[in-house]
Amino acid sequence: MAADVAEQPAGYARLLEPEHANAIAQVAATIAERRPRHVVFTARGTSDHAALYAAYLTEIRLGLPAGLASPSAITVFGARPDMSDALVVGVSQSGGSPDLAEVLRVARSTGALTLAVTNNPSSPLNEVAELSVDIAAGHERAVAATKTYTAELLALLMLIEGVRTGNGVLDAPERAALATLPELAARTLADPTPGELASRYRFARRLVTTGRGYAYPTAREAALKLMETSYLPALAFSGADLLHGPLAMADPDVPVLAVVGSGPGGTAMREVIARLGERRADVAVIGPADIDGAAARMPVPEVDERYAPLLDILPLQQLALSLALARGEDPDAPRGLKKVTATR
Amino acid sequence: MAADVAEQPAGYARLLEPEHANAIAQVAATIAERRPRHVVFTARGTSDHAALYAAYLTEIRLGLPAGLASPSAITVFGARPDMSDALVVGVSQSGGSPDLAEVLRVARSTGALTLAVTNNPSSPLNEVAELSVDIAAGHERAVAATKTYTAELLALLMLIEGVRTGNGVLDAPERAALATLPELAARTLADPTPGELASRYRFARRLVTTGRGYAYPTAREAALKLMETSYLPALAFSGADLLHGPLAMADPDVPVLAVVGSGPGGTAMREVIARLGERRADVAVIGPADIDGAAARMPVPEVDERYAPLLDILPLQQLALSLALARGEDPDAPRGLKKVTATR
Repeated sequence: MAADVAEQPAGYARLLEPEHANAIAQVAATIAERRPRHVVFTARGTSDHAALYAAYLTEIRLGLPAGLASPSAITVFGARPDMSDALVVGVSQSGGSPDLAEVLRVARSTGALTLAVTNNPSSPLNEVAELSVDIAAGHERAVAATKTYTAELLALLMLIEGVRTGNGVLDAPERAALATLPELAARTLADPTPGELASRYRFARRLVTTGRGYAYPTAREAALKLMETSYLPALAFSGADLLHGPLAMADPDVPVLAVVGSGPGGTAMREVIARLGERRADVAVIGPADIDGAAARMPVPEVDERYAPLLDILPLQQLALSLALARGEDPDAPRGLKKVTATR
Repeated sequence: MAADVAEQPAGYARLLEPEHANAIAQVAATIAERRPRHVVFTARGTSDHAALYAAYLTEIRLGLPAGLASPSAITVFGARPDMSDALVVGVSQSGGSPDLAEVLRVARSTGALTLAVTNNPSSPLNEVAELSVDIAAGHERAVAATKTYTAELLALLMLIEGVRTGNGVLDAPERAALATLPELAARTLADPTPGELASRYRFARRLVTTGRGYAYPTAREAALKLMETSYLPALAFSGADLLHGPLAMADPDVPVLAVVGSGPGGTAMREVIARLGERRADVAVIGPADIDGAAARMPVPEVDERYAPLLDILPLQQLALSLALARGEDPDAPRGLKKVTATR
């Protein structure tokens, strides 16, 4: 897992090379030409969080309604929704889960434009989809997905920004911003704070993660990593949903990890942090700036919140890894899990 | 909270009376006439789970793509998705949260057909929406929503089945099935098992809830009730997502509440129960039939899985209430919560 985590800056650099960037641009141009009226993402586990990020991007950057489909409506209950206006995107590192392939098969049969985003260009999901994006993350050793998650994020970002320009080619400011990511990711990973903080959570019995907007997928993915590797029950909430009920559960014994960027999502999180403070919760922030009332902070470079998910998850992956080791667990072999999970 | 819970059979009967049924039928007929190409739900907290149920119904019963919108894309990041083909439905017991009203306002300005489903016909959400459905649940005393949740479920079911017939009027088999709900709900609430089981979880430190398809919203709502009233961290997973990672967290110390109906969703859950058994998890089933390997069962009458969410949540509400009392908490006044949560 440590090796996978460390490879992420190189993974960003690889996807930005012309070979992969041009392939993604070509897919983006095709999508722009076909003008879908809305976008449906379908995914499981870690990839579901990458899909959630892409749904935010789609709504904010493309002005298209986007949603996450529950495969079971189709695969278990036999729904046959008419998706002829939709782009339907299956996101999966292995591309091997039968339920996602079935959703894309049904979508394509109703006239949808279908796209597989995977780390395995010859997967069943790629075979059933009209279009394919290769996230090119290389072989992932650990069961807990790390570098395939961030490669999905970047591939989806490049794709959606390519659809935005209309011809698939990113504009110059976008290219410039993306080009800084490998170095920013390396700098983020070099910070020792996550490893130091692991001892702080050694005896925590549970954990809450939270963020808003672009940062919400990060909160969800962090919670999943902590559950997979440290077996620590971690509850992820959007900052807004946290105020609608689960806040009652917060108390000084429940550590909170809050993703607070330097944009509108971070601003909206200030109220959440204040309300958590009233409940005397122990809050650690992941973000570029210190926040009043937070007990600790894992620093990340300041970037537009749109790019922040590609950096914010890195210290959280490191925390999950360090915490698993501190608790005497083996993060490379989570009990009960397989690398490819086949659900129907 | 106990009084609210007990009123649910009467709430079902009230919504099925001609006064409310006809009002819902009229809204359904208007929607059928306008032929939306897809449906977007937006909601927070408990109402988000009712919206999730409605999204399954929409895909399975209407053959229309359905998704849940993140309000923050619009309210925090300024997204202006073109929803001119969509029906956009805001679900909220109070109708008072500014973010949902803003989503409906933006949706309507792009040409969407908009609908407010609330327990307060004069709420801001109703004012901004073109169409309104009154769930007519009466005043809810407790902060934790119970009878407004089930009234939302039934109102959305009646609405969607009304859209299905095209003229808003339910067909005879549907009317007959719905007419049995008040009595089935009363019978479910009369069962003593949830109160007895509360002592079993008195010292549980956390809990997992799970279900598939129509039963997944029940799992999520049960988790929220347990968090709100007993401050017990409760993690809800779709049965499929549970296998993609969180299964690692399951062990004999983590009680699992599994909603297992007598249809395709329940059948799909059998594999999940078996995998939980391998991890020696302690599983209690909510459903009409005993399941191999389950340590306990809260019985509910056998109905089509489409109707099961209107019954399955009842013993889980009772469990949350009894467990809060057993743990010395006041379920009527969850710490840190207000009845109307204003998020932006």
